[in-house]
Amino acid sequence: MLEQCLKNVRAKAPLVHNITNYVTVNDVANILLACGGSPIMADDSKEVEEITTICGGLNINIGTLNQNSIPSMLLAGKKANELGHKVLLDPVGAGASTLRTETTFRLMKEVKFDVIRGNISEIKTLANGSGNTKGVDADVADAVTEENLKGAVTFIKTFAKQTKSVIAITGAIDLVSDESTCYVIRNGQREMSSITGTGCQLSGMITAYLVANPEHTLEAAAAAVCAMGLAGEIGYSRMKDGDGNATYRNRIIDAISNMTAEELGKGARYEIL
Amino acid sequence: MLEQCLKNVRAKAPLVHNITNYVTVNDVANILLACGGSPIMADDSKEVEEITTICGGLNINIGTLNQNSIPSMLLAGKKANELGHKVLLDPVGAGASTLRTETTFRLMKEVKFDVIRGNISEIKTLANGSGNTKGVDADVADAVTEENLKGAVTFIKTFAKQTKSVIAITGAIDLVSDESTCYVIRNGQREMSSITGTGCQLSGMITAYLVANPEHTLEAAAAAVCAMGLAGEIGYSRMKDGDGNATYRNRIIDAISNMTAEELGKGARYEIL
Amino acid sequence: MLEQCLKNVRAKAPLVHNITNYVTVNDVANILLACGGSPIMADDSKEVEEITTICGGLNINIGTLNQNSIPSMLLAGKKANELGHKVLLDPVGAGASTLRTETTFRLMKEVKFDVIRGNISEIKTLANGSGNTKGVDADVADAVTEENLKGAVTFIKTFAKQTKSVIAITGAIDLVSDESTCYVIRNGQREMSSITGTGCQLSGMITAYLVANPEHTLEAAAAAVCAMGLAGEIGYSRMKDGDGNATYRNRIIDAISNMTAEELGKGARYEIL
Repeated sequence: MLEQCLKNVRAKAPLVHNITNYVTVNDVANILLACGGSPIMADDSKEVEEITTICGGLNINIGTLNQNSIPSMLLAGKKANELGHKVLLDPVGAGASTLRTETTFRLMKEVKFDVIRGNISEIKTLANGSGNTKGVDADVADAVTEENLKGAVTFIKTFAKQTKSVIAITGAIDLVSDESTCYVIRNGQREMSSITGTGCQLSGMITAYLVANPEHTLEAAAAAVCAMGLAGEIGYSRMKDGDGNATYRNRIIDAISNMTAEELGKGARYEIL
Repeated sequence: MLEQCLKNVRAKAPLVHNITNYVTVNDVANILLACGGSPIMADDSKEVEEITTICGGLNINIGTLNQNSIPSMLLAGKKANELGHKVLLDPVGAGASTLRTETTFRLMKEVKFDVIRGNISEIKTLANGSGNTKGVDADVADAVTEENLKGAVTFIKTFAKQTKSVIAITGAIDLVSDESTCYVIRNGQREMSSITGTGCQLSGMITAYLVANPEHTLEAAAAAVCAMGLAGEIGYSRMKDGDGNATYRNRIIDAISNMTAEELGKGARYEIL
Repeated sequence: MLEQCLKNVRAKAPLVHNITNYVTVNDVANILLACGGSPIMADDSKEVEEITTICGGLNINIGTLNQNSIPSMLLAGKKANELGHKVLLDPVGAGASTLRTETTFRLMKEVKFDVIRGNISEIKTLANGSGNTKGVDADVADAVTEENLKGAVTFIKTFAKQTKSVIAITGAIDLVSDESTCYVIRNGQREMSSITGTGCQLSGMITAYLVANPEHTLEAAAAAVCAMGLAGEIGYSRMKDGDGNATYRNRIIDAISNMTAEELGKGARYEIL
């Protein structure tokens, strides 16, 4: 199934509309091309509805949100929902400022997201902070570990059920889950955290996977997460003496661009809980 | 002549003002430095006239246009015209949204462009969509091929005559033309389309070539297009097992930074129709 | 001391808030990670005070300033001052437009900067153009050379005294000075000027060094400047036939990510005047 998800991206070259931050935007565009998709970046409120209309999916990343881009996120998100397009939310820094937290809640209220992807801290902010009296239990530690895995899986399934979205929590162990099925993914390389934007890149790539695999949201998201982690492993194995995080950044995108379905099938390391 | 154009860029180090998108802006800056030019990026309406005044050329790229940058493009374009500076338009995504299409037409109406560079789809949008009853015949296919080359050359010459600009259409075959003379350029590498921003980079580089070769707009633009395509070939020849599009991006800019006039003279593959 | 400064950055992983330009922002983020710090980029006026509150230092770079980001710079700068955080100013292009020059003066008036880093032309603009009748003598040439070194050192000390900031002037010879002590640093590689953003990267890195070495502003800034120049040397030594400025950019960040305190101690080349 994961292999097929990758093949479908390469076969369909899904067009993804990105409203994303200016820090990592170039890498997001290049990894979308690397995986077989096609990126468009546009964030002015006067054009985002039209741009999203010609795409298959929308990737909303609040990394450097501002008062111009927030209305654009809402407009594009609603239009994408209306058209039945795939929509992903990357709540970068939710919890770090009121603007980010409130924008995230507003987006979640007004737009239906197929996937929400963040780190454990961001996702806990969403689960805890909604002001909703029925807040889900977010009593998990600040990282998903083998020790707290069971609690984390319960947490993510509960939050997936509440939001009716597939949730992806990435970290040393990645979790991708709907309300009943959780992929526990052990691909990846510790050194990926020494590069800016691997999370943003993954969100772009998940969106492409969703568009190319419209009936398999959970599996598509899990496939993209496995592919990114595996690319981190492959890229790291190609590092030479003197190479550092700048070269590593390129090697990861390179690995995505060369990845075959067979390679993903063999390299993906996950269990389903 | 092409060799001399490159030499002049290295000798004169032309300063280029760029109002461009935030996706590929870093690569545009680095390729401008690589070719021998010097980049300045500035897009606030309060400073663009002053900034463009101290430069020799202006590169307007509408890739992530917004309601702040559009007035800046108009102000800077008019000032550059007034000063006799070289001005280039890269109508990224013209046709994809009303905002992009209308902004392009407004820019073309209010600013005189020395060169307009885009892909065939963008240039056809400009030629067809002006609402002008004397629209030029844009009945060429979605790509310039050996089969439709004759029609494409007629199309580009007609559009160049109408706009009084040199037009550059880049793709598998590149065309650079004024109303009477068309360079048909066969440099380049298919894999360049797997990288974001090679078109944006080329637009920046053409602007530097125009500034350094003020009496030879057509030849300067053709030289830059040949150099970019040749860099794509050289960069690709240096790719190793496991390298992908991220490394390729660097190799292309590297090839521009090392390119000599002799190398360009030997490597340029074009005919004049 | 320089070695200890580097060690402290790696040990403390200082969080740096950057309000910076969109041209080089990705490289700034990656070099901050490379040196052991942690970057946050945020520039909307509704969140910059909160974001800067959770950080240890603030890096203000006016490279692509605009009417939205200028108020954010002022808000964040004042908040950082209030909290006793380290604050750095990189006056990119001061002197090139009235907006940049006036914004720089306004920032210097309303915010206390621990360090101001620029090239000689930018720093001279600040020293000369303040409209202050007691303007310091900026009669130094457009580059710091062995010939005018003595005058340049007098200039920088006078300006440091006037601003009560540590001043860093980077170029072929780098000067880092307070009112009484000037580090004259001879690390670096001529080819660094063929890459966009080494100055912006350095400003980000200095901020991380300041945060991690709160009692040693001068030494911390000097250590970061030595580290950047040394990385330029190491990165250049790893260049191979056919490599150019794009690869060099990566090699410099790589060298920062691998740099040890011992390497910096051995490689730093400076005298104190």
